[in-house]
Amino acid sequence: MSNSPMTPRRITRQIFIGGVPVGGNAPITVQSMTKTDTRDLEATAKQIYDYAAAGCEIVRVSVPTPDAAKVFPEICARSPIPVVADIHFDYKLALAVADGGAACLRINPGNIGGQDRVKAVVDKAGSKGIPIRIGVNGGSLESELLDKFNGHATPEAMAESAMRHVELLERENFHNIKISLKASDVIRTVQAYRILAKQVDYPFHLGITEAGTVWGATIRSSVGLGILLAEGIGDTIRVSLTGAGEEECRVGHELLRSLCLRQGGFRLISCPGCGRLQVDLHNLATEIEKELQTINADGYTFAVMGCAVNGPGEAREADLGVAGGNGEGLLFRRGQLLRKVKEADIAAEFLQEAQNLVNS
Amino acid sequence: MSNSPMTPRRITRQIFIGGVPVGGNAPITVQSMTKTDTRDLEATAKQIYDYAAAGCEIVRVSVPTPDAAKVFPEICARSPIPVVADIHFDYKLALAVADGGAACLRINPGNIGGQDRVKAVVDKAGSKGIPIRIGVNGGSLESELLDKFNGHATPEAMAESAMRHVELLERENFHNIKISLKASDVIRTVQAYRILAKQVDYPFHLGITEAGTVWGATIRSSVGLGILLAEGIGDTIRVSLTGAGEEECRVGHELLRSLCLRQGGFRLISCPGCGRLQVDLHNLATEIEKELQTINADGYTFAVMGCAVNGPGEAREADLGVAGGNGEGLLFRRGQLLRKVKEADIAAEFLQEAQNLVNS
Repeated sequence: MSNSPMTPRRITRQIFIGGVPVGGNAPITVQSMTKTDTRDLEATAKQIYDYAAAGCEIVRVSVPTPDAAKVFPEICARSPIPVVADIHFDYKLALAVADGGAACLRINPGNIGGQDRVKAVVDKAGSKGIPIRIGVNGGSLESELLDKFNGHATPEAMAESAMRHVELLERENFHNIKISLKASDVIRTVQAYRILAKQVDYPFHLGITEAGTVWGATIRSSVGLGILLAEGIGDTIRVSLTGAGEEECRVGHELLRSLCLRQGGFRLISCPGCGRLQVDLHNLATEIEKELQTINADGYTFAVMGCAVNGPGEAREADLGVAGGNGEGLLFRRGQLLRKVKEADIAAEFLQEAQNLVNS
Repeated sequence: MSNSPMTPRRITRQIFIGGVPVGGNAPITVQSMTKTDTRDLEATAKQIYDYAAAGCEIVRVSVPTPDAAKVFPEICARSPIPVVADIHFDYKLALAVADGGAACLRINPGNIGGQDRVKAVVDKAGSKGIPIRIGVNGGSLESELLDKFNGHATPEAMAESAMRHVELLERENFHNIKISLKASDVIRTVQAYRILAKQVDYPFHLGITEAGTVWGATIRSSVGLGILLAEGIGDTIRVSLTGAGEEECRVGHELLRSLCLRQGGFRLISCPGCGRLQVDLHNLATEIEKELQTINADGYTFAVMGCAVNGPGEAREADLGVAGGNGEGLLFRRGQLLRKVKEADIAAEFLQEAQNLVNS
């Protein structure tokens, strides 16, 4: 195969969220955030397990109150993945969760009421060896910056906000930082990250925030994060959906896989169908995709194609492929024709061959 | 707002598919392809109407046989949008559909058996004033090219295949051309279009082919087409899904909207929810999104936010927004606080204000 069209990855310093490296040459990780009431230990711990099973590698938990901070250590103790504490305004909560097992603090130092408090948080994070994530959000920009930019949270205003927070930490000689710059639209988000990428070498957490309900947010996050990742920008991602966190993780992994940035899972190629279609492709592809999930087919490519035009070519390039046509299908394994099978038998024989392939 | 992060659009010559301009400074259009048996006039005509209602602006219909070509003129006569005839190998079918009302021929001149036949097709297309789309597909590359590139349909091989077809048309002094270069993965597709963009000024039809079932194909198409469109590449798009063509069109429009390349529809911003959540956001956002589709809210931005951190900021920037919190919500209209409403009343009052806004 030929060169990748991807821009070489931006050079960033590597930090660690618990045992998970972020930045440098570490794999790009997938994150999500719990949606339970943090004080509900059982619900939150269960949700984290569900997320982890769906591929979540770092989880963020909001800590809005002292009650939540009290439960937080137990959440960390039970979590199978590192837990980032999401804190707004109250630096004492940051101190508490840092002692309570947080693997990272998400807190904006400019919003906690002065450099003394910044120093207290930095000292604590330093002594615990945990990073601070600066999380700039287009919806909650400082009012001075909004004034400076005519009332609008522009990409330049967002990047400048991040730099203000960065400087407060650097003033305390703290560099264990990652940064996010989220807006609710693709254009502002992409622009803001591009601007900041030229100014710092801290790793970036990517996301389109408040991206909307599942369908639209999946599209917008795929477009926005795809553009940035193809430019080499981004060290960890979170797909924000007004929906289940598990789905955020699945979309995140698929997005990374589409750019060959992560492996894992299998790939199913199937054609959209057209007037040339001679087999019931939609049901066939859906059934095969579902059954393939029950065997360990990580890393394999499968093709389920409906006709003789592009079918044989794609079916031949895949590890296992079928090209349907006229009530039957041609089964290929790694470019070799295996045999012709009747339409009614395609799914069963395909899955049997998939099992043989994986066992071989 | 600030500069767009988009690369200026690639300069392409403009062609017309029926009355629809493609290329130059024309809006980027959304296409799909019928999945019915073309010979079934009623089913095909109905499907085209369904596609058009979902935003389809150009429709492609496969014409694999003389029987299909016989029905084709009636399909064109009944279609509310221009119809592209998809032809493989048989140049006589191309001649027939050009006489039968095709607004464009999709045919690869290198595959029809010699320059005499190319000349016959070009003469016909020229006399009818209809363009030819060259559609290179990684799954059906010429065997000489596969041999040249060690058996693989690389991006370079795909671009070279397109140039061979282009030269056959240019030899007949025909330039009313658009080109697609589809592979089943994002990386090859992006690379192939980038290579060809430097070599010709013909407009491009973008797509990731055989992209798989709806969920994965939506992500891969959004990533791949998003990357290209952000670079200014692409004049018309088709999102290929092994699913309904209407869904292909809806995804296509949302993808273009996410990059501000098309208007239309409303935008709903909603947060993913977290441990700070104090209202039932998921159901609220879903209900509001559904009801907004019943009023003519094209071009408006709505925000449905769950808490006090980013909520008021986003709610204020929207045309109409609500920031939930503690069993109630703050309603904003274009930055002005309207009033506080009880949680149970948020949806109804929000929709009433949306109606007022649209009527105003």
